[in-house]
Amino acid sequence: MRIVRYAVGGERHYGELESGGAGIARFEGDPYTGLSPTGHTDRVGDVVVLPPVDGPRIFGFAYNYASHVDETDREIPEVPVCFMKPSTAVVGPGDAIVYPSDGELIHFEGELVVVIGKEARHVKPSEAPDHILGYTCGNDVSDRIVQRKESAFGTLLIGKGQDTFAPLGPVIATGLDPSGLALTTRVNGAVVQSASTADLLLPVPEIVSYLSRYLTLLPGDVIMTGTPSGVGPIRPGDEVEVEIEGIGVLRNPVVAESR
Amino acid sequence: MRIVRYAVGGERHYGELESGGAGIARFEGDPYTGLSPTGHTDRVGDVVVLPPVDGPRIFGFAYNYASHVDETDREIPEVPVCFMKPSTAVVGPGDAIVYPSDGELIHFEGELVVVIGKEARHVKPSEAPDHILGYTCGNDVSDRIVQRKESAFGTLLIGKGQDTFAPLGPVIATGLDPSGLALTTRVNGAVVQSASTADLLLPVPEIVSYLSRYLTLLPGDVIMTGTPSGVGPIRPGDEVEVEIEGIGVLRNPVVAESR
Repeated sequence: MRIVRYAVGGERHYGELESGGAGIARFEGDPYTGLSPTGHTDRVGDVVVLPPVDGPRIFGFAYNYASHVDETDREIPEVPVCFMKPSTAVVGPGDAIVYPSDGELIHFEGELVVVIGKEARHVKPSEAPDHILGYTCGNDVSDRIVQRKESAFGTLLIGKGQDTFAPLGPVIATGLDPSGLALTTRVNGAVVQSASTADLLLPVPEIVSYLSRYLTLLPGDVIMTGTPSGVGPIRPGDEVEVEIEGIGVLRNPVVAESR
Repeated sequence: MRIVRYAVGGERHYGELESGGAGIARFEGDPYTGLSPTGHTDRVGDVVVLPPVDGPRIFGFAYNYASHVDETDREIPEVPVCFMKPSTAVVGPGDAIVYPSDGELIHFEGELVVVIGKEARHVKPSEAPDHILGYTCGNDVSDRIVQRKESAFGTLLIGKGQDTFAPLGPVIATGLDPSGLALTTRVNGAVVQSASTADLLLPVPEIVSYLSRYLTLLPGDVIMTGTPSGVGPIRPGDEVEVEIEGIGVLRNPVVAESR
């Protein structure tokens, strides 16, 4: 099932994207406490598709594909290396990635994103699927200049946490096996990242298990699993697409900050 | 005013701690949308004092006192260096800091904590006070072994984000000038940190302005402003107190993880 979160007529709903992609079967409730069919169908053209999660906690994994570790001239980390992005970084499909007025080097990073469905603490990798609602596409937009300055002191926030730096969507795909999905990123139509989630150094079940060993994961949390090789700059006027097999295409224009 | 968040009779309320400290004047509403008196007084002994904020986003500043930068053998950072702690790290006054079963070197860090009252984006330092609700005490508990391994790769999450690693409280003090408050940390009654917030490298108004330049601060967000020199280890059985002038004492026992 592909769950879409959307606004229509001043209300917000979850729905199931129908197979043709033109209709949305509207639900009552939410995916964390329970969805039930309403029998009502909305037309995709009539709604505003929202980010698939509302104000989530965002956990990110860095250096989680060998191909990306290579291009950054780093070694593979001794422990999984994680960070958070603030909820205010989230935008949905079609929303602008705002290029900061003092930005010098802003990069895209196409990523598979896990959406947590059920609280998780001390979960084994084999139990992880029970705590995962599904998967979406994400773009871990990064300000490399600030990131380098922060990371030199062992922290990371502004480099990845600016408003609009976490496009997510277009849907949450449930029932998907995350172990070998094709991931493609395009800038202005040209393929810049092409990889398989089979190459994640820490695969999805281990990611959930690792975080839950130390902290309580909550329904609606999202985990950005890391980016493969091919990261590069974006500029105002560009359009970035992150496509993942079984999920869909997350498309966002890059727009200059207006101040 | 000292605002306390508490539970009594199965309900949660905000109230004003009366000057003697034995009574709480109960409010209706919350400090972000508006408090109004109810005329009802609760006795402190009858209530459970909760963390002063509910599931907050937590932003932290590192290396923000020269005395602490010195003791870590670092230079003063080129830019403010920030990180996030997850909401699940929060515990309230009297709650246990859980010492992880595989923990080897866990440190306390006493800190002044800003509580945001009103959305803030592109706020000048001079405007920051309008967006601050008040101040509380915080303990930025840190797993130094994990922190070092993460920071070597320029990120930070598990080193500071484990469950119970963000004690906050006991109250939100409003109308306080944060520019020269005495901050004292004690472990088992012995003073281990003694400083003034006058020594913050990036003072409170600049902290709010800096973050808001890049991201939208929301009501209920908390900002841990950094720790002065004197950080050190805690062990199960210890009791840590963070005391800040005009706020009060945040006291937490350290308890071994039970698994």
